[in-house]
Formats: sequence, structure tokens, C-alpha cells
Amino acid sequence: MRAALVVLALLATQAEGRARDLGVPFEGTPGPLNAITDVDGVTVGHSTIIRGDGPLKVGQGPVRTGVTAVLPRGRDTLERGVFAGWFSLNGAGEMTGTTWVEESGILDGPVMLTNTHSIGAVHQGTIAWRMRQGGPDDDGYFWSTPVVAETWDGELNDINGFHVTEGNVSEALSSARSGRVIEGNVGGGTGMICNGFKGGIGTASRVLPGSAGGYTVGALVQCNYGRKADLRIAGVPVGREIDGAGARDEDSGSIIVVVATDAPLLPHQLKRLAKRVSMGLARNGAIGANGSGDIFIAFSTANPDASKTKGTASLTMLPNDRISPLFAATIQAVEEAVVNSMIAAETMTGANGVIVRALPHAELQRILRRYGRLAELPTTGR
Amino acid sequence: MRAALVVLALLATQAEGRARDLGVPFEGTPGPLNAITDVDGVTVGHSTIIRGDGPLKVGQGPVRTGVTAVLPRGRDTLERGVFAGWFSLNGAGEMTGTTWVEESGILDGPVMLTNTHSIGAVHQGTIAWRMRQGGPDDDGYFWSTPVVAETWDGELNDINGFHVTEGNVSEALSSARSGRVIEGNVGGGTGMICNGFKGGIGTASRVLPGSAGGYTVGALVQCNYGRKADLRIAGVPVGREIDGAGARDEDSGSIIVVVATDAPLLPHQLKRLAKRVSMGLARNGAIGANGSGDIFIAFSTANPDASKTKGTASLTMLPNDRISPLFAATIQAVEEAVVNSMIAAETMTGANGVIVRALPHAELQRILRRYGRLAELPTTGR
Amino acid sequence: MRAALVVLALLATQAEGRARDLGVPFEGTPGPLNAITDVDGVTVGHSTIIRGDGPLKVGQGPVRTGVTAVLPRGRDTLERGVFAGWFSLNGAGEMTGTTWVEESGILDGPVMLTNTHSIGAVHQGTIAWRMRQGGPDDDGYFWSTPVVAETWDGELNDINGFHVTEGNVSEALSSARSGRVIEGNVGGGTGMICNGFKGGIGTASRVLPGSAGGYTVGALVQCNYGRKADLRIAGVPVGREIDGAGARDEDSGSIIVVVATDAPLLPHQLKRLAKRVSMGLARNGAIGANGSGDIFIAFSTANPDASKTKGTASLTMLPNDRISPLFAATIQAVEEAVVNSMIAAETMTGANGVIVRALPHAELQRILRRYGRLAELPTTGR
Amino acid sequence: MRAALVVLALLATQAEGRARDLGVPFEGTPGPLNAITDVDGVTVGHSTIIRGDGPLKVGQGPVRTGVTAVLPRGRDTLERGVFAGWFSLNGAGEMTGTTWVEESGILDGPVMLTNTHSIGAVHQGTIAWRMRQGGPDDDGYFWSTPVVAETWDGELNDINGFHVTEGNVSEALSSARSGRVIEGNVGGGTGMICNGFKGGIGTASRVLPGSAGGYTVGALVQCNYGRKADLRIAGVPVGREIDGAGARDEDSGSIIVVVATDAPLLPHQLKRLAKRVSMGLARNGAIGANGSGDIFIAFSTANPDASKTKGTASLTMLPNDRISPLFAATIQAVEEAVVNSMIAAETMTGANGVIVRALPHAELQRILRRYGRLAELPTTGR
Repeated sequence: MRAALVVLALLATQAEGRARDLGVPFEGTPGPLNAITDVDGVTVGHSTIIRGDGPLKVGQGPVRTGVTAVLPRGRDTLERGVFAGWFSLNGAGEMTGTTWVEESGILDGPVMLTNTHSIGAVHQGTIAWRMRQGGPDDDGYFWSTPVVAETWDGELNDINGFHVTEGNVSEALSSARSGRVIEGNVGGGTGMICNGFKGGIGTASRVLPGSAGGYTVGALVQCNYGRKADLRIAGVPVGREIDGAGARDEDSGSIIVVVATDAPLLPHQLKRLAKRVSMGLARNGAIGANGSGDIFIAFSTANPDASKTKGTASLTMLPNDRISPLFAATIQAVEEAVVNSMIAAETMTGANGVIVRALPHAELQRILRRYGRLAELPTTGR
Repeated sequence: MRAALVVLALLATQAEGRARDLGVPFEGTPGPLNAITDVDGVTVGHSTIIRGDGPLKVGQGPVRTGVTAVLPRGRDTLERGVFAGWFSLNGAGEMTGTTWVEESGILDGPVMLTNTHSIGAVHQGTIAWRMRQGGPDDDGYFWSTPVVAETWDGELNDINGFHVTEGNVSEALSSARSGRVIEGNVGGGTGMICNGFKGGIGTASRVLPGSAGGYTVGALVQCNYGRKADLRIAGVPVGREIDGAGARDEDSGSIIVVVATDAPLLPHQLKRLAKRVSMGLARNGAIGANGSGDIFIAFSTANPDASKTKGTASLTMLPNDRISPLFAATIQAVEEAVVNSMIAAETMTGANGVIVRALPHAELQRILRRYGRLAELPTTGR
Repeated sequence: MRAALVVLALLATQAEGRARDLGVPFEGTPGPLNAITDVDGVTVGHSTIIRGDGPLKVGQGPVRTGVTAVLPRGRDTLERGVFAGWFSLNGAGEMTGTTWVEESGILDGPVMLTNTHSIGAVHQGTIAWRMRQGGPDDDGYFWSTPVVAETWDGELNDINGFHVTEGNVSEALSSARSGRVIEGNVGGGTGMICNGFKGGIGTASRVLPGSAGGYTVGALVQCNYGRKADLRIAGVPVGREIDGAGARDEDSGSIIVVVATDAPLLPHQLKRLAKRVSMGLARNGAIGANGSGDIFIAFSTANPDASKTKGTASLTMLPNDRISPLFAATIQAVEEAVVNSMIAAETMTGANGVIVRALPHAELQRILRRYGRLAELPTTGR
Repeated sequence: MRAALVVLALLATQAEGRARDLGVPFEGTPGPLNAITDVDGVTVGHSTIIRGDGPLKVGQGPVRTGVTAVLPRGRDTLERGVFAGWFSLNGAGEMTGTTWVEESGILDGPVMLTNTHSIGAVHQGTIAWRMRQGGPDDDGYFWSTPVVAETWDGELNDINGFHVTEGNVSEALSSARSGRVIEGNVGGGTGMICNGFKGGIGTASRVLPGSAGGYTVGALVQCNYGRKADLRIAGVPVGREIDGAGARDEDSGSIIVVVATDAPLLPHQLKRLAKRVSMGLARNGAIGANGSGDIFIAFSTANPDASKTKGTASLTMLPNDRISPLFAATIQAVEEAVVNSMIAAETMTGANGVIVRALPHAELQRILRRYGRLAELPTTGR
């Protein structure tokens, strides 16, 4: 019940727009949705848990957390894996399943995002959900090493209460769809903090010109990293310009990034994409601090036979000599997805009355204008 | 109840001896226990679940599984991490927490071993157990990315029934102690199959001569890999010589190996040790097959300040020029630990009446003798 | 002769100042020299070859190339190795010796920088130079896998003429000293192109506050990567704002970065520093393009016994929890070193009359001012 | 002149047979030549330098060294790269060009083998040779980061005299052909020592049954690692059984292994093959000692469009589920290639009159027979 209401509230807020609607300038051309779902076949689902207020009682709440599921091939993810690669800029976090991704070059199932202490629940829930779907692999064998990643929401959420359940996993997986992606305080991003402001889920995409193949690259972030002092947007030191303290003094937190593309890349090429995520983060001022779990995975929806098990598979590959535009697109999409997560996130009051404020839209615009970096658009306020 | 009885039964069997008691020849000098616990401070605990017989009903059993915990510094593991490194020979499996081990060089808590589908339960249970211990990090923060590894026991065990509980995790952790390590059908190894015969937990150790520093290396394996046809013991093609089919035709299965040493090695040196595990397995005929999760972690109990967080830490390092004897010791200990796991394991009847027979001791001895490879010892039968 | 004259010319130009003297704003506090030589013990030497003009005749010139040597412990480098780690953002290039750096954690000798086709000459020359120095390892055994890295200067230089000789290697090594580092068209950087303008050698440093340990981080780059269109300085899209085409249309080129610190970091921690170089480059607009060899090495001059071969070594380690300021310092020093290389480099006419122009200082200042990003300093022109 | 005579002498000796001709038992089915050249298209060439006798005078000899070239596609190697992967078991050595292999998944040219101090000469010589061939890439650009690997022959050879020249590189490359591969004291292997006996070049191959695809795997080793005490052949502790000291007491030395296959493997799958080389070495008793450069590269001659630069490439891939037989074949071929190198190598007298004896064939046979491990074949003596 609660979750449904929250989603409506978020939709209302989203109408205000996203980062580029506010005039934040970005490079490159986004896809129609400016979202990871611009990559054909990719679906995203959230399960959001917002429950209780007041003092923290471990096991009772308040709860501000959830689960986000990214399915590379939507329902076909049940049977067809995708080529994938991963990279850890700073491994102070968890992304399970990566040892098999590295070995096989294949991502067999979804990418699941949640809080740090719910890795276990989501791991088991993902296997269990697979078994309930039945079909050719109804023992869930191929989903036995699911990819589950996390960031820490212990400031706002009763993280030690283990509130994420198998039901939340099912909800995220079963509700996953293409089309617009809800951003901000939703799914795994519900209780997250980003660059000192309220963070969470963000997404963006880029489409290459036809001369470069016309491929799409999409990024989805669960953004929970960074200090206010380091925040740069569009090259402007926004964090230093906004008054007041950030929600975290330390460089803890983390960011998980999922990159999708329809370009026919092999596993080792997708690792190259995953490495570029670091550079998108760097543009926003990130340093990959010691306590930050900055872990990235990239997959390609091309090559439907990537996970074939018999005979030989016929594949298509984009030559390395044509890959640089995809590097640029990845960097650009990640840069924008991070800002989108902050623009979409609303001020939240969590456990023990802790308040994490949203990035103030109008102030951001004022600062960008002062640095000659506000695109010419009607001002919207917050 | 059941678990306790089983342990007694195992103790009875163990009295028959271990691989070297049967005359299997190995290189190097073992420690007093010929076990990972010869490395001072290391403790091991098991929780074994053996319940039910007859046809498999998912969720109801039969159950043949469990949890094994290896604590690098015993109870001090709560507060003091160890330097560690890891290596994946073939990543068709899961060992969570390795991204942080790789990044930080530190193993903050125990190494937990279980079945493939209980990774989630053990992950959450390990964090929860840490919190219950209280003390300086009683929110379990530093145990948030626990190292939990697995092998597949789905032939004998209702693996999709998710029978491992938080209680089993607690039992393994709380019962961990130094001294003799129970091997075979116990803990995480309860339902495992190794080279076509019943496998499970095995351990061995080596002590270097004083001229090489007198250091100890111990290995503990959860052995579930390989085909009968490939099994070599002491260089002899034992698998081909023993009549009958192995319990698995395919090269599925996996092996997790934990290597401990008191030699003062840095993280990058411990990764070197972890790499040598492959070579110990190779001596027994392993090929690191595609479906096998062959994942190894090595840690050093030296350097009590390895995980210090303030000031600077004073460390001791063994020079690389002195490390080769530790490589040899690792290879030898792993080779013997695998054989020990098979010698200790008893024939087991599991779900759906599947029977996996133990490696026949007397036949092994006959074969080794024929190849001039049986050490001069009194014959023991099985 | 020629080389000496060139050096004088460069000195004259350098008097105009470096990037921050022009008002380019950077974060953090530089060391006294704002150079890698602010890290105590580090020495740098160059051998510059500028010879001939007009049409290219392979083997005859024109020649615009050289060698740069970075010695971690100056003359003590002959006998004492340093802890080191490396990282490849994009491996379209060569840095020899890294397999041993990765394995041992030790950098045994200098880091040598040259052009792509002179790797062989510098490799052999470095071993030969070591042997000529005599002493405890006068067979050069420990220098047998020297670290030699390269970028491509084939637009301006007769790269296929193999003009670098053992004499140049000796000159770079023997002339290495502490103190100010000559930047721009010098040593290995002589013929390099960076972001469409003349590039080459650049350096910068950062000093942490006493509360963070007071450590120094220095970076030295051989900068030859990127396209004009992508160039950002201080967050401003400078490349797009400057009229005219860049010297390269394609994203070929490369950048080699050497990071030095006196903070007591272990090899796995130095790898963490090396990874952060990517983020410094990203701030200047780099994307790590397919054809770019973006390869980085970081070392620590602390721990004089790092390469001890007997007994055990006593070490000091900075805890991971204190490392983040070094990450930030690395990113900042790399960002500035790249800009410094472009500010110092002079317009050059090379083979076939190809002209690569220097980044115009006054225009850079005008653009930064327009974006509110010029620090308040007296304008200097070019 | 000298080189030609030596080759004739070797041919005479080779007639005695190879390891399996002596009755050494191996698993699996070799190809027609039992050599890397069983993989269609692969060519091998040697340049052997044997010159001088008596006391060592640096720069004057005696010389016992050379160059071996492995061309993945014979002359087509000039224009068509192959997919490749590499692995370092112990990185105390050099294999240049691996950073680009890792990044691109492509091996653009040959694999060159030589002595440790001739890496430079062979690096430059390989680029120069490519330029002299002319054609579409006659500036040698794509061969700019050649793969050149080494082992140390300083006991028998004046390694500090830098005797390998561009002429030797040309000879090895230009003489490369398919068909039988000369083994032992030849090419890069001329002065090498293996497990205490004379080593050098060795090769072997395996052919999979048609049901597994009928693919071929070939291995070529430059064998220079190990101690006599550790040597096992066919599981038998041969090193300990043969009287007398080995040629080296220390675990220095190295082994470079090249693995070729016609199975359509992608780069990440070829890395998996390269990893299995360790396991083949382990069967012969190797431990990957600290001073040993044990570096391996694997490539696939399938997929002629692997290095295409325009449009998209159509590829074929063998599914991971079918790869295990290739793992076994790699292990078996490496195991046999090492023994072949020792069987083929002749006793050599080198610098300063140092004599390294060949592995005595008849004694080997006697020992294997005693352990029930000699295959039924007519005895040949030495």
C-alpha cells in the first residue's frame, strides 16, 4: 500500500523535470526517454519500502529502503544471458556474481540493487523468484550466482533490521518494464545520499549518430557517494557554492552503476565500457574514496545467442576501432544519470528524524548561470 | 540432535586415520595436527544438517548440508582483520566479499562455506551474528561485506529448500575452535562430491624448516569438484584404476580453498599463495572445468595491526626472495587436504535415495602399491 | 649541441610561468616546486633529440624525440627498489616491466619514457647503463625487466628511423636530478601532441595538510592523448571555445603518468593511486579512447627496506582509512600536470613541415574569465 | 654458418624420438605432428646462435642463444590479427605487448621468444621487419607493441653481450613455416635449463574427438624453469630418482608458453586456456617459484575477421559449456611439451666451460618402468 502511494508522489514531483530540463548542459544526444530503457529490451522495476518515523529501533524501523531490478532482456532474461563485463573503481562494497561474469563473459540474470545488509535477502529471493517462474531452468540453476549490489542507507534506514523480504524482490522483478524509469527516492535508492544531498536512482542515455552505428548506451545509477565539497556539475564547483553542510562529512557511501548498450560488444569490450564509468563520475567531482563501493557492470543486448550452450554461436562484434564513441557516450550518460538522481530525489526524513535535503534546483540554476553554464531554458524552481 | 549424532559417527570413522595414515605419500612436513588450525589463532567451526530420507520435496528435504566457519584470529577476528588475497581459477561459483579483499588487502571477518543456494542466508546470518556479539563495531559495519563461498550439493541435498538458517551460521561461528578439524561429511561439506566419490571438508598443513623461517601453512578445502576418470593421487591414475562409475559424469562441482599462514606476507604476496592452490589441485588431476567454481582465499595471521585505522601501522614482511618455500607448502597442503576430504568422507545416502560412495581405502592402497607409491605403513581397510 | 640549445630555449619560455601562474584554478596545495621532485629523493632526467627539418626520410629524420628518466630514489635506485602499483585505463600502448611490478609489488629501477618505436633501444640501454654503474648488482640482473613506456610521436618525428640510442638513455639517467623539472618539448615528450595542441612532459604536486599526514604526491605525465574538441580546463570546455582545428582528428595518442609519493603505501594501495589517474584525466575531458595507451604507475619512496631480500623487512603502512586525501591529491596533481605540459610546450615544426601549435595562453585566459574560472592574477600573454 | 650446422645436428638427434616414443605415458590424442603447427596456419621459425667456447668475455661470448618466432596465421599474420588472452602464473619475467592483448583481445603479430637481455633487440627488430615487408600497414603501426617474451640463459650464454641482432629476428620470422618443429637447443631455447637438465623449445598438441568438435590445441614452450628435485614425469618423482645434482640449485629460471587452437574462442575464453597452462606445469612438479617468469599466451586461429576495423565482424564462438575438453587438452599438451623439450635437448657446454647435461633417456625409462608407468614401447637409449 505504502509503496504505491509513494510512487504517485514521486510521479507528481518528477513532472518538474530532470537535470537537462533545468538547463544543466550535457554533451551528446540522449535517447527518447533519456533512460537505460532506451536500450531495447531492458526493463527496470522497483520495490520501495517507506515505513515508520521517529527513533530507530532495530528490527522495527523506521524503514527507508528497497530493491531495484534491471533485466537486460526483460522476460527473456529468464532464458537468454547477455555478454557482460564489470569493473571496480573502489571495491568497498559488494556486487555478487561478478566472479562468474568475469569468467564466462555472461550475465545470466538481472542486476539487483538494494541496501548493504539486504544482499542476503535479495540473493536468496532472486533465486527463489526464478524457480517460481518455472520453465526450462526451473531449478534456478543458471541464476545461482545472481548479481546483487548494494549501497549503505544506514543514516535514514534501519539497515540492521533486515527489512527487505523475498516479497520485495518479487515485486521489483515482476514489475520491471520498459518505458520511463522512476528516479530518486525509489527502489534500492530510497534511502541514499549523494554528494551531501538526497540521492538515489538516476538514469540517462545517449544515442550515437548513424555514422557511428546509431547505437544506444544507457546508464542507471544507485547514487550514494561523495561529499558536498567535491560536487561539480557541468564543470562548476556547485558543492562549494551552495551554503550549508552536506548530509555526510565523510567520503563514505558508494555508487553502483549499470550500463546497457545494444552495440554488439564482446565481454572484454564491455569491461572497457565499465571502466569508463569512473570518468563519468570524475566529471562530477568524485574521487572514489576509500569507503566508497564504486562498482560497475556493463552488458550488451545484442547477440541473442551469447549464452547458447550447444553447437557454436554466431555473433556480431563491433570492432575496437569503432568503440570510442561508445566510451564517450558511457561517460556522458553516467555524468547525467548522477545529476538526474539528485534532481529527482526529494528531501527525506528518516530514522531518528534525520533529514537529508534535496539539491535545491533554483540555487543550482543560479550558480550555473553565474559560471556561464546554464543552458537557455525557462527557469523552474523548487 | 541429529547433527550431534552425526559428529560422533564421524569421530568414530576418523579414528581409522587420514590419507597419510593409509600410506599415501606426500611431500613436506605437516604440522602437529596436519590441519589449518596448526596456524596459530585460526579456529574452525561446523554446523551440519542431516535430516530426512526418501524422495525430494522442495522445502521439506531430505537435507544434507551445513555451514563451516574459518576465523583467522579466533575471537579476535571480531576486531582485528588480517591481510588477505584471493584468486579464481575458474569462477563458476560465488565467494562474496572478494571485491573488498582485493581493494583493501584486508579480510575483516571469517570465511564462511555453505551450499550454493544458502549464500544469502549465510551472508545475512554472518552480519547478524556480528551485531549480537556487541563491542566496538556492534553495528556489524566492518562485517558488511562478509566472505561467503559455496559449492553445489543438489544431488544429495534439497538445495532449493533453503534449509540453512541463521541458527546454523551462529552455530558454526560460535563453535569455532582451534585443535583438530573434523573432516568429510560435515559443515558446508556435508553433501559434497569430489572426483566421483563422497567429498566434503578436508585439511592439511606444512611447516617450513627453521632455515626457511619455520612458518606454517594450512589449507582447508570444501571439495566438490572433478570426475572420477581424472583423479590422480600421488601421481597415480587412481580414478581410472578403480572400477565403476563416479557419482557425477560431468565436470560440474566446485572447490573452495582457504589457505592460512603465520608468515608475514602482504596482500599481494597472499594472492601469490592463492594462485598456487591451482597447482595443488592439478597434482590430483583437476582441470578447473567450466562449471566448477574453483575459488581460493589466502590470509596471514601475522601483523596484528594490519587493519589498524589510525596513525600508521608497523608491519613485518617476508621478502619475496624467501617466499618460494611457502609456494611449495601451499601446493603440498592443498594436494593433501583434497585427499583427506575423500578419505574422511563416508558413503552417504541423500535425497531420492541417491547414494554416493566413499573412496575405498583398501583399494586405494592396493593401487598405490602396484605403482610403487604406497608408503610403508600397516594396511587399514574399509 | 642541439639538445643543449633547446633546453636553454625552453628555460626562457618557462619563465612565463606555468598553468597556475596564468590563473588556471586548481584544487589543493602544491609542493614548493609543484613537481614530482617535491617527493624527496625522486630525480628526473631528460635527453632531447631535435635534429633536421623538411621532408621525412626514414632513418634520416627529421627527429623530434627523446628519453625521460624518473628515478624513484635518485642514485639509491641502483640498489633499493620501491613499492609500486600500476593500472591501465586503456592499454593501447606499452609499459614493459609491469608484469614483475604486479607480481612483486616492487619497482626495481627507473621509469623510462620514450617514443613507441624506441622501446627496444631504451630497454636494452637501461640494462646496459645499469651494468656500467658496477656495484653489487653489476650484471644488471635486477634491472632486467625495466619499466619502459611510450607514446607515439610519428606526426612530428621520424619514429621509424629508430633514432634513440643507448647514449640518450645514459644521458637521461645520468643527468637525472632533483629540483625543478623542465616541461613541454623535452625528453620523451619532445614530439608529443596533447588535446590537439603541442604537448609533452608536465608535472605537478600536492602536499597534504599535517592533519592528514603532511605527505606529498607528485605526478609526471608524458602527454600525447586526446582531441581538441574534448579538452576541458578547470571544468570549462576550452577545446570547443578555441577556434581552429586540433593537430589530430582522431582519438589516437596516449598518456603515460608516473605518480610518486612519500606516504607509506603498500603495493595494493599504490595500485589504488594509479587507478585515480583516470579521474584526473577525466576532469580534463579525456575519454580513454580506443587507440590511446593510457598507462599509469605509482610508487612510494617510503619504506627503504621494501626490496630487502634477506631476513624480514620492517615496514610502515598508512591505513586505508587515511588514504582518501591521497586519492584527491593524485587526481589534482594529474589534472594540473596535463595542463602544465600544454602550457610549457612550444609550437613545433616537425617532419614534412608539420606544425603543431601551442595552446594559446592569452586565449585560454580569456575563455576562463568568461566562465568565471580565471583566478585573480596578472595576465600574461603569448 | 654455425647455426645451420647445429640444426643438422639436432635433426640427427631428434630421430631418436620424442617423449612418447620413449614410452612416457600421456593422456589424450596428439595431432599428426604432436606440435603447435598441428593448428592449421601456425608457423614457427628459429634463429640459433652458437658461437665461441671458453671463458666468458662480455660482448665476445661464448654465445648460446637465439630467437624463436610463432606466427599465428603464418604470412597472413601481417594483416590479420587473432583473438588472444594471456596469464601470468608468476611474473618474474617479461612478455611485452600484453597490455594491448588484454585491452583489445587481439594479438596483432607474432609471439617472439628470446633471452632476457635481448628483449630490446627483438622488440625493435620485429617492428623493423614488419616495415620491410611493406603492404597495407608498412609503417608497422599495428606491430608497434609486439609480443616479445624471454627466459634467462646467463649460465651458458654471454647474456650481457647483447648478441641477438635484427638479423636473427628476421631469420626467425622469415624462416617460419608449418610442419615439424625443431625442439631442444634451438632458437630462443638454445641456452635454457629445465628442471636441472638441459631444456629449451618443446611442443605438443592434442586433437579433440569429433563429438567435442574435433578441435586442435597446440603448445610450444621455452622451458627454463625448475629444480631437479621437483621434477615429476607422468606422476613419477623422476628428479629425486636420478642421481647427481641439477644444473641449478635455485628456483630461478622461467617458462614461456604459447598455446594455439583452431577452436573459435573469444578473448576471455582464451585467457581461461592460458590459466590452465599452470596446471600442466604443476603435473611436472612446478611450483611457480618466486624468481620464475611463468607467462603464458593463448590464441585462436578461428575467426578470420577478429581484427577487422570497419563495419561489424561476424564471429563464431564455442559456448563455454563445451570448453572443458579444451582445458584438458591444454593441460595435457603443456605437460608433454615440457617433457619433449627436455628429451630433445642435448648436453651443452657453454660459457666458462659450464656443462648442462641432458635428461638421460634410458635412465628415465628405467625409473618409469619401476613405477609401472612406462608404456609398452621398444626401449631406446642415449
